[in-house]
Amino acid sequence: MTARDVPSGEPATVPTPAPGDPRLARLSLNQRTTADWSVADAIAGCRSAGLSSIGLWREPVAEAGIQAVREWLDAAEVRVSSLCRGGFFTDPARADEAHESNIAAIDEAAALGAPALVLVPGGLPAGSRDLRAAREEVTAALERLAPYARDHGVTLAIEPMNPIYAADRGVISTLSQALDIAEATGDDVGVVVDTFHVWWEPDVEEQILRAGKRIASYQVCDWITPLPADALLARGMMGDGHIDFSNLTRAVARAGYEGDIEVEIFNADVWAAPAEEVVATMTRRFVELVQPYL
Amino acid sequence: MTARDVPSGEPATVPTPAPGDPRLARLSLNQRTTADWSVADAIAGCRSAGLSSIGLWREPVAEAGIQAVREWLDAAEVRVSSLCRGGFFTDPARADEAHESNIAAIDEAAALGAPALVLVPGGLPAGSRDLRAAREEVTAALERLAPYARDHGVTLAIEPMNPIYAADRGVISTLSQALDIAEATGDDVGVVVDTFHVWWEPDVEEQILRAGKRIASYQVCDWITPLPADALLARGMMGDGHIDFSNLTRAVARAGYEGDIEVEIFNADVWAAPAEEVVATMTRRFVELVQPYL
Repeated sequence: MTARDVPSGEPATVPTPAPGDPRLARLSLNQRTTADWSVADAIAGCRSAGLSSIGLWREPVAEAGIQAVREWLDAAEVRVSSLCRGGFFTDPARADEAHESNIAAIDEAAALGAPALVLVPGGLPAGSRDLRAAREEVTAALERLAPYARDHGVTLAIEPMNPIYAADRGVISTLSQALDIAEATGDDVGVVVDTFHVWWEPDVEEQILRAGKRIASYQVCDWITPLPADALLARGMMGDGHIDFSNLTRAVARAGYEGDIEVEIFNADVWAAPAEEVVATMTRRFVELVQPYL
Repeated sequence: MTARDVPSGEPATVPTPAPGDPRLARLSLNQRTTADWSVADAIAGCRSAGLSSIGLWREPVAEAGIQAVREWLDAAEVRVSSLCRGGFFTDPARADEAHESNIAAIDEAAALGAPALVLVPGGLPAGSRDLRAAREEVTAALERLAPYARDHGVTLAIEPMNPIYAADRGVISTLSQALDIAEATGDDVGVVVDTFHVWWEPDVEEQILRAGKRIASYQVCDWITPLPADALLARGMMGDGHIDFSNLTRAVARAGYEGDIEVEIFNADVWAAPAEEVVATMTRRFVELVQPYL
């Protein structure tokens, strides 16, 4: 395994952890980090790298067939840390459609043994500038969805999203706002703490402690500058950007989170690199920048 | 004057207001909106369009000579709504340098009769990931600067910036956070309410009311998607994006703000258009989307 880091080219400051290294026990590869791997490849890649969990996406899982995926997971002894993604709640004209899709997503999460379904709130409906109304739609949709999730043992995980996406992708903009909604919806509604989305939030550590057991997923990647031209591909490998993972990770640990930690990076340079190298870099950066603070 | 809108190409839904139209009384052109105009051009352009105020930037003013600018302003009967920009407070190694620069900026604002000096907080110092420390530097620098500003009749106006800029330009990310700092610093320390920066803030209307008399500048432009490749040029003409100006403007009016309203747009398409057309579009959009809610 090369020691070259992807994509920064910086020399590795720690050796690539070997499979079986206990420091990798909670590290999960979100499959979108390795764009050229199929679901089967990604599960095999996790096993080879010594990772025991993976974050899956609905579309590639559906393409491969959920039963087949389940068998690959069992054979590789890899668990699912979360399923991406439900949500897209904000358009009242499509509320029923969204609800049905989310019901299906809950079924899929349950079938895969995923503890959490990640919910992207959705942006402003076409032609609307009413952010308040869009946010109220999210709350209403969650209230409608929560009983079904509860009955199926899947935690709904609201993902607050960096305000860069407030118009077109996620109208829930802070962990504080996500928690307001979660608390209003039910004891078992959770949130995603994704460093890329919340690192700048003025009281983020206090909000993480407030979240406590509601943290249904902890996802790590970096905020890099200059921001890549495509804002959807703006995430960086931990250590390549500006985020201090020590304080955020300590807060997540203090909040009582004991689940997996996913690395989800949408970035053209990362996607262009060989997936094995991306995973090796990810494991090195994780044991250097995240794991010591758990 | 053409009725073509810049840069959207949408037909104007209202005629271009004529000079003397009372609805333009509080509209100010920030000079960076018309990139190919000199200071003299911009002052003349304001007068031609019937605007009685302009937002100026330090560098072009220094180039033209502050005394000359003052004479042009007086001759055109155009006042300065704000001077951009001081700030850049976050690097402790450059705190003295920043302080001296801000002292000079206060002198310039006073000489121009600008009621407010806009303060860009500054990003993380090179190599630092300590957002909390950077934010504390802002508070410390403001405390040091406030007495001088007070003595010279210039309001310090902290500009909270969209989190898209938290790493590299402005570590103060919400109006709420800017107000915490302003309130801790002094009765006369103000804030900028810039729609581009704060439109997504979950309780932005409440924060605007909280700001009250601390609102030292109200700046309007739109949040457009997809985000242009250069994040610094992501601002759009009012009406071209996703921001609801009615609620924000109503809140600013209810907070008691009676000053000028600046339009500050950094956008390659706007800059490529003839400046007179940009100003005409700006006046139409202002009387349609902003002025009715004052």
